[in-house]
Amino acid sequence: MIYPKSLSDSINYLKKLPGVGEKSAERMALSIIDMDVDDVDALANAIQDCKNKLKKCSICGSLTESDICEICQLSKDNYRNSKLICVLEDYKSVFTFEKSGKFDGVYHVLGGLISPMNGVGPDDINLSTLIKRVEELDNPEIIIALKSTIEGEATTLYIKKIFEGKNVKISRLSYGIPMGMDIDYLDELTLLNALNDRKDIS
Amino acid sequence: MIYPKSLSDSINYLKKLPGVGEKSAERMALSIIDMDVDDVDALANAIQDCKNKLKKCSICGSLTESDICEICQLSKDNYRNSKLICVLEDYKSVFTFEKSGKFDGVYHVLGGLISPMNGVGPDDINLSTLIKRVEELDNPEIIIALKSTIEGEATTLYIKKIFEGKNVKISRLSYGIPMGMDIDYLDELTLLNALNDRKDIS
Repeated sequence: MIYPKSLSDSINYLKKLPGVGEKSAERMALSIIDMDVDDVDALANAIQDCKNKLKKCSICGSLTESDICEICQLSKDNYRNSKLICVLEDYKSVFTFEKSGKFDGVYHVLGGLISPMNGVGPDDINLSTLIKRVEELDNPEIIIALKSTIEGEATTLYIKKIFEGKNVKISRLSYGIPMGMDIDYLDELTLLNALNDRKDIS
Repeated sequence: MIYPKSLSDSINYLKKLPGVGEKSAERMALSIIDMDVDDVDALANAIQDCKNKLKKCSICGSLTESDICEICQLSKDNYRNSKLICVLEDYKSVFTFEKSGKFDGVYHVLGGLISPMNGVGPDDINLSTLIKRVEELDNPEIIIALKSTIEGEATTLYIKKIFEGKNVKISRLSYGIPMGMDIDYLDELTLLNALNDRKDIS
């Protein structure tokens, strides 16, 4: 033993959080002792609420504490464009998009990618609800924002096929050079993608 | 809004922990959603226990969930040397000492340092209990392990004076070069201290 039980418990469980090692877990646990008791309770409650209160939005699959998420509610109230659906792998990407503050459409969270290698087929991800959503819309547009891996591309192609011949506009995010990245540090695939996705300068 | 309430609450309170910024708090909060529910409850409970269950050992002032800490209990059971008392500023140092695994005495946590500039006098720190402890011992030895600041040195000198003329052996940790540190990078004061505390090579 070195630490009293509650302290070593805290350290052990804090270490399960991403990016938290032994040393930082110790610093965190020790700092809790000096924190305001209300803050400690609030932290503990918020952590439990994250696990217990958050569920999937029944429309888009994003995270919410209600039946439908705030973004889907805004689109119902016509504050966001419900005809522009951005397809994402997981709910974390929703927050990344929202932070940019530039997208006024809605989202659809697949909760996974098609991966025959890992036995994940089209029925294992949240695709049927996407089809239903899109079919109910007039002139819908889908933007696929999946990562550029085999699984991401397979899923992108599958979605493209589903809506082929139907009146659905489908695009995917462009691949290319991240902002500020030196050309010399690019991997070959990114360079190739940036070449393929090159844009006319007008 | 970007996040649902429980998520943004978690992020805000996780940010109060040392070394946790916006980005890491987000990663942590999002990871909680994917954690096992038992682990989440255990984490939340451990955090609250840290605040609610931990108190000061009635003998040495170190942290414990009982009336006296495990180290003081071990010394009562004669597994540790109760006559060798290491005087520390705060309870965190107890853990640092225990990790070295080489000290078999007991501790005394002052909970502060004498600092006339900040209005902290001898009565404001845990000194009276130290005097009482020492007086009850036969041939006690005190090792003072306080930092080498004005406050640390003032407190060290004060403790030395208290026990002057009494049969108490008093020493302090040596000042000097930290292991692996290049001489060229030493500050002048550390170099001076290392000179003053120099040791005969036998």
